[in-house]
Amino acid sequence: MLLEALRKQVLEANQEIARRGLAPHTFGNASGIDRLGQEPLVVIKPSGVDYAKMTPGDLVVTDLDGKIVDGRLRPSSDLDTHTLLYREFPQIGGIVHTHSEFATSWAQACRPIPCLGTTHADYFHGPVPVTEPLSAEEVEEAYVRNTGAIIVRRFRAGGLDPVAVPGVLVAGHAPFAWGKTPAEAVEHADVLEYIARLAYRSTLLGAPDAGLPLHVGEHHYQRKHGSKATYGQR
Amino acid sequence: MLLEALRKQVLEANQEIARRGLAPHTFGNASGIDRLGQEPLVVIKPSGVDYAKMTPGDLVVTDLDGKIVDGRLRPSSDLDTHTLLYREFPQIGGIVHTHSEFATSWAQACRPIPCLGTTHADYFHGPVPVTEPLSAEEVEEAYVRNTGAIIVRRFRAGGLDPVAVPGVLVAGHAPFAWGKTPAEAVEHADVLEYIARLAYRSTLLGAPDAGLPLHVGEHHYQRKHGSKATYGQR
Amino acid sequence: MLLEALRKQVLEANQEIARRGLAPHTFGNASGIDRLGQEPLVVIKPSGVDYAKMTPGDLVVTDLDGKIVDGRLRPSSDLDTHTLLYREFPQIGGIVHTHSEFATSWAQACRPIPCLGTTHADYFHGPVPVTEPLSAEEVEEAYVRNTGAIIVRRFRAGGLDPVAVPGVLVAGHAPFAWGKTPAEAVEHADVLEYIARLAYRSTLLGAPDAGLPLHVGEHHYQRKHGSKATYGQR
Amino acid sequence: MLLEALRKQVLEANQEIARRGLAPHTFGNASGIDRLGQEPLVVIKPSGVDYAKMTPGDLVVTDLDGKIVDGRLRPSSDLDTHTLLYREFPQIGGIVHTHSEFATSWAQACRPIPCLGTTHADYFHGPVPVTEPLSAEEVEEAYVRNTGAIIVRRFRAGGLDPVAVPGVLVAGHAPFAWGKTPAEAVEHADVLEYIARLAYRSTLLGAPDAGLPLHVGEHHYQRKHGSKATYGQR
Repeated sequence: MLLEALRKQVLEANQEIARRGLAPHTFGNASGIDRLGQEPLVVIKPSGVDYAKMTPGDLVVTDLDGKIVDGRLRPSSDLDTHTLLYREFPQIGGIVHTHSEFATSWAQACRPIPCLGTTHADYFHGPVPVTEPLSAEEVEEAYVRNTGAIIVRRFRAGGLDPVAVPGVLVAGHAPFAWGKTPAEAVEHADVLEYIARLAYRSTLLGAPDAGLPLHVGEHHYQRKHGSKATYGQR
Repeated sequence: MLLEALRKQVLEANQEIARRGLAPHTFGNASGIDRLGQEPLVVIKPSGVDYAKMTPGDLVVTDLDGKIVDGRLRPSSDLDTHTLLYREFPQIGGIVHTHSEFATSWAQACRPIPCLGTTHADYFHGPVPVTEPLSAEEVEEAYVRNTGAIIVRRFRAGGLDPVAVPGVLVAGHAPFAWGKTPAEAVEHADVLEYIARLAYRSTLLGAPDAGLPLHVGEHHYQRKHGSKATYGQR
Repeated sequence: MLLEALRKQVLEANQEIARRGLAPHTFGNASGIDRLGQEPLVVIKPSGVDYAKMTPGDLVVTDLDGKIVDGRLRPSSDLDTHTLLYREFPQIGGIVHTHSEFATSWAQACRPIPCLGTTHADYFHGPVPVTEPLSAEEVEEAYVRNTGAIIVRRFRAGGLDPVAVPGVLVAGHAPFAWGKTPAEAVEHADVLEYIARLAYRSTLLGAPDAGLPLHVGEHHYQRKHGSKATYGQR
Repeated sequence: MLLEALRKQVLEANQEIARRGLAPHTFGNASGIDRLGQEPLVVIKPSGVDYAKMTPGDLVVTDLDGKIVDGRLRPSSDLDTHTLLYREFPQIGGIVHTHSEFATSWAQACRPIPCLGTTHADYFHGPVPVTEPLSAEEVEEAYVRNTGAIIVRRFRAGGLDPVAVPGVLVAGHAPFAWGKTPAEAVEHADVLEYIARLAYRSTLLGAPDAGLPLHVGEHHYQRKHGSKATYGQR
């Protein structure tokens, strides 16, 4: 089977989305990319299939333009967002889209998630950004691809690094998260949901958006990600 | 057994209400209708019976006026709401009533659930409407049937299509949802609860009711329900 | 064993408190009363014992003054509240005290739970009342007994019937609920928590305290409790 | 194995953190101290290891300066906070750090948790304090040790007794809790989360911070902890 190992990782990531309760029903999808071959290949969840019943063979393999290379089923309807992000963010190896409860609530409120504490700073360098809404023309022209485009536009405009900020809220929609692998993308999606929960409560308790002093956030981010990282068994 | 297949579907829908935590205690009921015979027949949950112990034979079969055609037990005390909705909304095949936590909280606040995101737009075309309260006369005259009547009145007044808006909040009471089958009605009741959760948080974070741009909502609704639907394995 | 059947009911009620998540740690207790003998006897949970390890023989039997009639262990430290309520409310056969999350939050806010919907009206006739705080003298003199006394004072002052209003919030403390039996008392404690959850969300969404029109509340209460009850298999 | 019994207690405490949902991912750690030997020895969780796979031998033993005495793995990156607290609070035998949801939300809002009810007063004598934020110099110099230092400074400045107030919120970070043993420290961390939940809801319902009358709080605290304690089987 083509890309059998990656298929298994992507299947596992999709099931992990369900296990962690990040996407009720089939609101969610994970993909991974193999950038080693001559042509990069994307493996993605099929559309509207129950997580519990999915097998590696149900996954769909496409090229970076979304053309199906292998697979009997239709790919996730969000495919064009994934492929655009893979094209524009060459550092990432896996993408996860969920409708997780609190992150989606922030996305619907069109508010970035402020960095109010070290749980956030350990994973996201600065606020979790929120995109602009799509214009009527962008929706009409290519809704799914343009969802990727407004994400990229938000990162370019803000000078954001997708490695340091491994996720985003699409205004009026829901979060996308990514990572080096599909497994790391799910982890980031899960952390994003957790910091969305924390920030929601803190905000309702009156925390100002400029919550955490910058020097604390910076220290925490660097202790996990900087060149002198002190966390874990490295 | 009369309508054995439909009884099983309705039993399954009632148990699914419990499994998804949509109705603690016995606050909830599901029904289905068979419109194929000479006279349409409704299958509904008996009143106040524990979901776990219910068997297909415990369900009650009535005609569209609520007259019992088959069954040893008393039908759900909400029967007259169900039969009125089946008479007035000929497109629907299953109805579910729950007291699910967040949808009921909106119903108690007498506020429609605004469409703030694509999770909502994928299932409900526009806000989830809320009825007017029943007048003292309507309560006195026929409380349960008039609960159905105010739902229908709300749909007629708003020019709403029960297929595009598969649920409603009864003011000061709780939600009703419906679908082509009892199973789809439960799914809609569950999605309704989820979008109620999302909208609750978004609203507390300051989202205005006119949240999602119309062109995005429209696009999402059409991509699942329009003639050019692109979602799922069709 | 003295009062073996009642011991089992009370044990079951205590375990049900834990199963329903109404009292983390050992914050909670249930009791029952046998009013048939010459002298009424109360069966109550022992103090600070893990629910999972409790056996019928661990329960403590006292008279209505709290004098131990049978039992190796110390009774719940809330015993004097229970016995005072049994003396003053002769209609009740079981009492449950919890620190369930939302009911306790209302109690801590010293606010009665307004009747905003039919879920509430089905079980509680009017708002769930909240007591006054205990004075320093009352605390000093007999804290636990006076907790019962302020409950009774609240019911007398408000002209409330403990059968129609089967529970109360003790200001700055937590809820007590009761019923004809220990099992019904747990059910009421559980419903009280649920309506506290609903009312919390509705209130934050802007529902006024005078939420549900009186004629709807009245109708719902009577349909489950009035002489013409239409709910369940009676 | 050195300190085998304490290793088991600390392992158990770390697993209990996970079981109670107090620290998603590996956000959390527990330690214990043996003060009986010539030199006090601290046993602490290794950094970034999955709770489910940890064995007693994975734990790390250090002296009170954090020098490793026994262990193959790196100790928790929060070690210096633990050792400083053990040096400054000689009454305590176990420390637990979590990122539990509601306590962390209060920490992020930089607000102490007010004592609004008896659930709180049973365990914490007065509000749960919140530290000042660390200055840029303190972060730069020794972030982790200074996290301990600001906790101690808060207790000294407020005249607080770490036995009567068995936990604290670190501003912009999360809670620490402690107790006579690692098991008691987890219990206090769990209670802290529960009272954070209660106080969050009560505050949103409008409870003033000076919620519970002092005489009630005092009575409750003393009934569990004073010389005339009446709670439990003592």
